[in-house]
Amino acid sequence: MNSRVVALSGGVGGAKLVQGLSQLLDGAALTAIVNTGDDFEHLGLRISPDIDSVVYALAGLDDPERGWGRCGESWTFMAALKALGGPTWFALGDGDLALHVERTRRMAEGATLGEVTQQLARALGVRARVVPMSDDPVRTRVITDEGELGFQDYFVNRRCAPRIRSLRFEGADRARAHPEALEALSAPDLRLVIVCPSNPFVSIEPILAVPGMRAALESARAPVIAVTPIIGGRAVKGPAAKMLAELGLAVSARAVARHYSGLIDAFVLDRIDEQEPAADAPAGMRLVYADTLMRDRDDRRRLAAEVLSLAEPLATEAVSAHTHGARRPDPRR
Amino acid sequence: MNSRVVALSGGVGGAKLVQGLSQLLDGAALTAIVNTGDDFEHLGLRISPDIDSVVYALAGLDDPERGWGRCGESWTFMAALKALGGPTWFALGDGDLALHVERTRRMAEGATLGEVTQQLARALGVRARVVPMSDDPVRTRVITDEGELGFQDYFVNRRCAPRIRSLRFEGADRARAHPEALEALSAPDLRLVIVCPSNPFVSIEPILAVPGMRAALESARAPVIAVTPIIGGRAVKGPAAKMLAELGLAVSARAVARHYSGLIDAFVLDRIDEQEPAADAPAGMRLVYADTLMRDRDDRRRLAAEVLSLAEPLATEAVSAHTHGARRPDPRR
Repeated sequence: MNSRVVALSGGVGGAKLVQGLSQLLDGAALTAIVNTGDDFEHLGLRISPDIDSVVYALAGLDDPERGWGRCGESWTFMAALKALGGPTWFALGDGDLALHVERTRRMAEGATLGEVTQQLARALGVRARVVPMSDDPVRTRVITDEGELGFQDYFVNRRCAPRIRSLRFEGADRARAHPEALEALSAPDLRLVIVCPSNPFVSIEPILAVPGMRAALESARAPVIAVTPIIGGRAVKGPAAKMLAELGLAVSARAVARHYSGLIDAFVLDRIDEQEPAADAPAGMRLVYADTLMRDRDDRRRLAAEVLSLAEPLATEAVSAHTHGARRPDPRR
Repeated sequence: MNSRVVALSGGVGGAKLVQGLSQLLDGAALTAIVNTGDDFEHLGLRISPDIDSVVYALAGLDDPERGWGRCGESWTFMAALKALGGPTWFALGDGDLALHVERTRRMAEGATLGEVTQQLARALGVRARVVPMSDDPVRTRVITDEGELGFQDYFVNRRCAPRIRSLRFEGADRARAHPEALEALSAPDLRLVIVCPSNPFVSIEPILAVPGMRAALESARAPVIAVTPIIGGRAVKGPAAKMLAELGLAVSARAVARHYSGLIDAFVLDRIDEQEPAADAPAGMRLVYADTLMRDRDDRRRLAAEVLSLAEPLATEAVSAHTHGARRPDPRR
């Protein structure tokens, strides 16, 4: 069986599944391609929220209670910054700050985001590869009924309150897909590509907006499976449900499945959504049910194992599906 | 009686006396001109150790146990930075970090060091004026038997171990004295100039090396008093004693007094040094004995009061001393 697995991930939800996968796979076998559309500069520091969530989860440093940032965190910096009259809308824990300061320092010395990510992840004992979708800046911009906002301004400062009209990924057209991302997706021993349970619009779309990334997924020699970020009509975390509604889509896991139509071979829904009418299944896509809510590390591993178990049957199906004109008419196959 | 007091200060020892003065003087009456020769950039942050010591002391945020940094400090950042393989030779507390990050941010937006110092000090409730000796960069370089070192490298990283040969203050010749410093020293209602119990070589000398600063002291219309940083042949803190020895001077308060010869009207020694032979007193300088060790805030206030009490008698003496060709033949007087 092929051995390499690629996961496309945004922040917290995706990071949990990536961590689950890392419990089952050798370090070198797992590559996480991570959204950098949420990245921004704040207080002079380069902040990559999704990369950090993935790295913290893989390093076992994520905070299971809060859902973001580091465990064992302290908040002296923020209190002192507030006393100084500094900007406090974006919370930075004292330990978390070290990652931003050190990344900023190394990048100022000339390292790329990918290099720094790799160095810092290694320092924390992470063995999987964590790769930014691009070393070039891509910035998600949210077009709302109150005007265009930077992602963190919309997400953190405005708490997703403005009504969303559309999104654009500034710089994506000029960004070069990270070479390691393309290499992983074109690996001959690729076993599975997993679209993590991340926000499809602001976590996965920016990755796909980088030139070459969607094509690399389409021509990957392995099945592509997405895991739902919507359970029982609600987002586990974040504004995915609100965005679905505001973009005129149904607030359901199947709406996300349809959104991924043509890109994925299978979509994993939560068992509590098994009652939805099967007629909603997009053509050429297999729907699979699983317990998708990841409350603890065991849940993560269990879901990761279920997703991995789909690789072989889907690969077999794909061979026949190819003859029926399914997802990916890969010229090399 | 004239009302304004100017203190020349380095870090911790000077900061204590400045804080003592602030217990006795109205905010507007006290100006601290602070050494910036120790300033450096670290982790991409602009760090001004002496300014910070003075601001923390004035804000009541200094740590009386540790002797530097903030009280109630936490160290999560340093632990996390260490885990990331970042440079940890310079300790930065989590709360302290906020000052550096916020200063760096505001200076990147175009504010001067003096402006940012004033803003941040005000935010912390400081009413005295804290003025950097210059807004221009001056960097103390330590020429040692192991080569030339940056000050923080010598002081923190090497713990003052290399034997000192000389010092130079890079950029001092091109630096412009801070206008508020010159304004304070030339104020017609100036009551007293105090050279704080700071290291004469690396805290006070850099201030005097800024063009115009020594002349401003010489022409100030008030007595100049220095307080000893050496008590009983030992430095209260830092490498002053070691430097005295390595520069071929006696390790005594009087050696410091001689070092300031021509600049000051009086020198305050600790009472435990009262036994030293009076013959050592430099010409034209009055020696005064006091309890100079500042263990707590009461000590600081008491010493500040003693120093302030010398202003009037010295001013009276100076009028007669002038006719005998003492320190400052001020053409304007």
